[in-house]
Order: sequence, then C-alpha cells, then structure tokens
Amino acid sequence: MSDSAESLQASWSAWKTQVEAALAKSLSEENGLGGECPQRLREAMAYSLLAGGKRLRPVLVLMACEACGGDSEAALPAACALEMIHTYSLIHDDLPAMDDDDYRRGRLTNHKVFGEAMAILAGDALLTLAFEVVARDVRPAAVAAACCADLAFAAGGCGMVGGQVADLEAESQSSRDKDSLTHLQSIHRRKTGRLIRSALTLGGRIAQADVATLGTLDHYGTCIGLAFQIADDVLDVTGTQDKLGKGVGKDAGHGKLTYPGLIDLERSRQMARDLIDEACLAIAPWGERGRRLEALAHFVLERDH
Amino acid sequence: MSDSAESLQASWSAWKTQVEAALAKSLSEENGLGGECPQRLREAMAYSLLAGGKRLRPVLVLMACEACGGDSEAALPAACALEMIHTYSLIHDDLPAMDDDDYRRGRLTNHKVFGEAMAILAGDALLTLAFEVVARDVRPAAVAAACCADLAFAAGGCGMVGGQVADLEAESQSSRDKDSLTHLQSIHRRKTGRLIRSALTLGGRIAQADVATLGTLDHYGTCIGLAFQIADDVLDVTGTQDKLGKGVGKDAGHGKLTYPGLIDLERSRQMARDLIDEACLAIAPWGERGRRLEALAHFVLERDH
Repeated sequence: MSDSAESLQASWSAWKTQVEAALAKSLSEENGLGGECPQRLREAMAYSLLAGGKRLRPVLVLMACEACGGDSEAALPAACALEMIHTYSLIHDDLPAMDDDDYRRGRLTNHKVFGEAMAILAGDALLTLAFEVVARDVRPAAVAAACCADLAFAAGGCGMVGGQVADLEAESQSSRDKDSLTHLQSIHRRKTGRLIRSALTLGGRIAQADVATLGTLDHYGTCIGLAFQIADDVLDVTGTQDKLGKGVGKDAGHGKLTYPGLIDLERSRQMARDLIDEACLAIAPWGERGRRLEALAHFVLERDH
Repeated sequence: MSDSAESLQASWSAWKTQVEAALAKSLSEENGLGGECPQRLREAMAYSLLAGGKRLRPVLVLMACEACGGDSEAALPAACALEMIHTYSLIHDDLPAMDDDDYRRGRLTNHKVFGEAMAILAGDALLTLAFEVVARDVRPAAVAAACCADLAFAAGGCGMVGGQVADLEAESQSSRDKDSLTHLQSIHRRKTGRLIRSALTLGGRIAQADVATLGTLDHYGTCIGLAFQIADDVLDVTGTQDKLGKGVGKDAGHGKLTYPGLIDLERSRQMARDLIDEACLAIAPWGERGRRLEALAHFVLERDH
C-alpha cells in the first residue's frame, strides 16, 4: 500500500467515526431531531441512516473542506446532510413501487421492517432533516443558504430525483431506445453524479473557497462521480453477493441500463480509469493538499465492494 | 359582507393570482426548475402543484409579511415553498400505502394518473424544490437560512411528517387508546399546525420582524391552524362531496380520529370559535395593520369548503 493510500485509509476511518457520531446525534431528542418525533419514525430513520456503509459522500465533504484549508469540524453538518439525502434516496428507491428490493447492505430494506407507509415517511423526514441541519448549523448564514441551494439543486428534479425518473423510464423502454451511452451518462450524471459533486463543492463552500477552486472541485467531483457509477456497474457483474450485500447481477436482470451491458467490461474499466486520471489532473496543481483527494480517486477505481 | 371581509377577499384573490404565476414559473425550464428535469416528472409536479385550491398557506405568508410592514413581493419565494411542501404532503398522503385516496380536490390523485413511483418522486422533488427556492431567492441570505431552518423543522419529524406518522398509528390502535382529545391535538399540532405557523413566521422573518412580533405571529398561527383542522373535521361530517372534492365522512369511515367523533359537532364548533377569538386577541394590539389577519381568522371559521 502506498503512503498516500495508507494516509487516506487512516483519515477516512477517523472521519467515518466522526460522521457516524454526528449522524447519531442528529437523530437524538436533545441535540438533534427533537422530542416530538414519534419513536417509531425515529427508529425507522435510524435503521437506515445508522446502517454503516463507506460514508463516501460525507467523507468527501470533509476532505474537500480540508483540502481548501477549512476546518473539517465545521463541515460536519453538511457531511451529515449529504448522507441523509443519500439514505432517503435508497429508502425510496427500494420501495415496491420503485426497484422493489428486499435487501440493502446485507440487511432487510426499510419497508420490509417498518412497512411501506413508514418507509416513505422516514425518507421524507430524512430529506427534510438534511436541510434543517445545514440551514441551522452551517456558519456563516450566507454559506448555509448557498449550501442549501446547492444541495437542493443536486437532489431535486434536475439532479438525483430526475435521474431516478430517467432510470425508471429507461427500464420500461424497448431495448433499441435504450442503446445509448449518452443516455446512460445523462442518467448517472443526475442520479448519482450531482450529489457527489455537491459533496465536494459544499466542503469547498464551508472552507470559503473562491469560485475557481469550487470549479476545480466540481470538475473533480464530476469525474469521480461517473467513475464511481461505472465501477458500481462493473462490480454488479463481477462482485460477490457477500461483499455487495445485494444480489449480484440484479441490475442487469432488472433490464437496467449498465455500462458493461453497453460497452463491455474491459471498455467500462478503461472509461473509469480515464475519468480517474482526469480527476487527478484537475487537482494536480494543488500539490500536497490534493494528495488525499488523489488517493480517494484511485480508491473509487480499486474498491471491491 | 363586512368591509374587512371584502378587503380580505379582494387582496386574497390578487395574492392567489400572484402566487399561482410564481408557482408556474418555479416549474419552468428557464427561470425555475431547470431544463434537465424529465418532462414527465415536471408534468407530475405541475399536475398537483397547479391544481388550484385556496392557497391558504402562501397567502398567509404574504399577509404576515405585509402586516409586519414588509414587501409581499419579497415573500413570494417563501409563499411558493409553503405550497410546494403542502402539495408534496398531499401527494404522499394519498398513496396506496398511506390513505389510499383516488380523488383530491375533485380530480384523480397524482398516483392514479402518473403511477406510484412517479407520485413518490414528484413529491420528493417538490419538497426539495421548496428548499431550493427559499435558499436561492429569499434575501438577505441570513434570512433565507433562518427560513429554511423554520420550514424544515415545521415539515419534518417533529412537525408535519411526525404528525402524519402519529395519525397513521392512531388509526391502527384500538378505539379505547384513541379516546383522547390531547392525543388528537398533538397530532394536529404537528400534522397541519406547524406548517401554518411557519407560514406566518416566514412572512414575519422576510419583513425582518423582531422576536416579539414573530412570537405573536406564531401564537396567532397556532390558534388558526388548530381551528382550521377542527373546521375541516366538521366539514367532513356536514359538507357536500361537491364542495369538498372528496368523499364526505371518509375520514370518520377510515377510523381516523376526528373532533366531532370525540367531542360532538357543537363542542367542536365552539372550540374552533374560541381559538379564533384567541388568535384575534393576539393581534388586537396591532390595530389597523392586523385587520386582514383578523378577517382571515374569521374566514377559517366560516368557510364551507
């Protein structure tokens, strides 16, 4: 393992611990969600939000903030918000009316445990809490407002939700219509890409980075977001159920558009490598302070789950 | 009709027109939601958001802003946000997994027209857009952040979503457990009350009202919010399907907790009257600038749909 990979792993692990403590606190009666939240709703939110995982998005927020010379502690509320929005999207995507999944990260999905109505509402409450946390806890208030606007754009009809709609629409179209890499990229740019980009730019905003720096973060985020999705599709074909915590080949089986399905496995891997190179090139002028982001870009490529 | 009732009606009608134009614009490609939103998603959002209705919540925002000496035009983004959140909650509440309603305001519900998956996503996108509009368009940014925080608290696990969970839980409990006015009030305080209160305080915030004034608006909002809900329950018993646009007695039939079901029709009406008196008393010291809010409180009591 290279020095930078080791250093990435150490800081990732420390940040993950910090994020998970902050997420747990955000649901608490006293310092978080508040006392008037029904117990069962709080449990349903916690079930999915505190279910572990890599915490890629919140770690990206902290990493971007630090790379821009900011205090990563100050970026914790935004980091939590990203994870809340990611989690809500998983809960809603798993619903019977959507992807109809029974398992997620090796555990029963939210609606299998709490029922459909509660799963819908737990997702709604997590999305809402994300904005509350950013609006209330990010300082100064002008940065909080800019972060809320970024986050909403990334998560909304032109971003994550729009991408999910396009994905569902692609599934129901004939295979001829689907035969388009451009279309697949336009889905992923919105469905997973925008939120990952916003993780980077939120970190930058909290460090009060200038517009050029935010642009660099956005470029880096665009590349690793797309590479992450390609790697996901590749893992769906090559991974093991044990590591993925979900059925292998499930996406392809659902008739979903995937990279290996369109351009074969080797070309998919090459495309991901090219994107990672582009991401690293974007932050190359940052030198030492970009090392962790560089290591993270390589991790996206090499991860096996 | 009294002078103040006539004046209320005239300004309500003008504000409603303004709000509806702003709502339509908020979904547009150029000045609103943006061009990357899938067409079908935009249609599903518009179907419910532009379906008419009294627009009580946005009008309350404008009215509160004006009563505090602010420019009601500046409050339009917050007014739209309130209506988006109200609309998303109706779309999700109507889903088969929740109240399973086929009609709303006399038209097919969103999922009956667009399917369940799209209805869930249209709701998600409207909730998200609400925060985008406030964060991006309310000025100054510090007020935008405070408005986002208020709105999220009102709409989230301790507010509207929490109230909906408590409502669903009450339905599934035995009738003995349900026999509690306190419990019913705690449901409505969250399910409908908090959002109405936040309509008032957002209007005040945008007018840069002081803390005491925001407190008065909050008190007024608490009273009319609860009175509004009682009036709703009374109408469910006494109204006509034609005016309500939904099945009469549907709530009682579903085993929902209602005021007339707990304390009979006449005591329900008296309770609503008392609350309206309390609301008017709260703003009485405002004299002339509180006249419209006073007239609105009486409208809540006297409306027939």
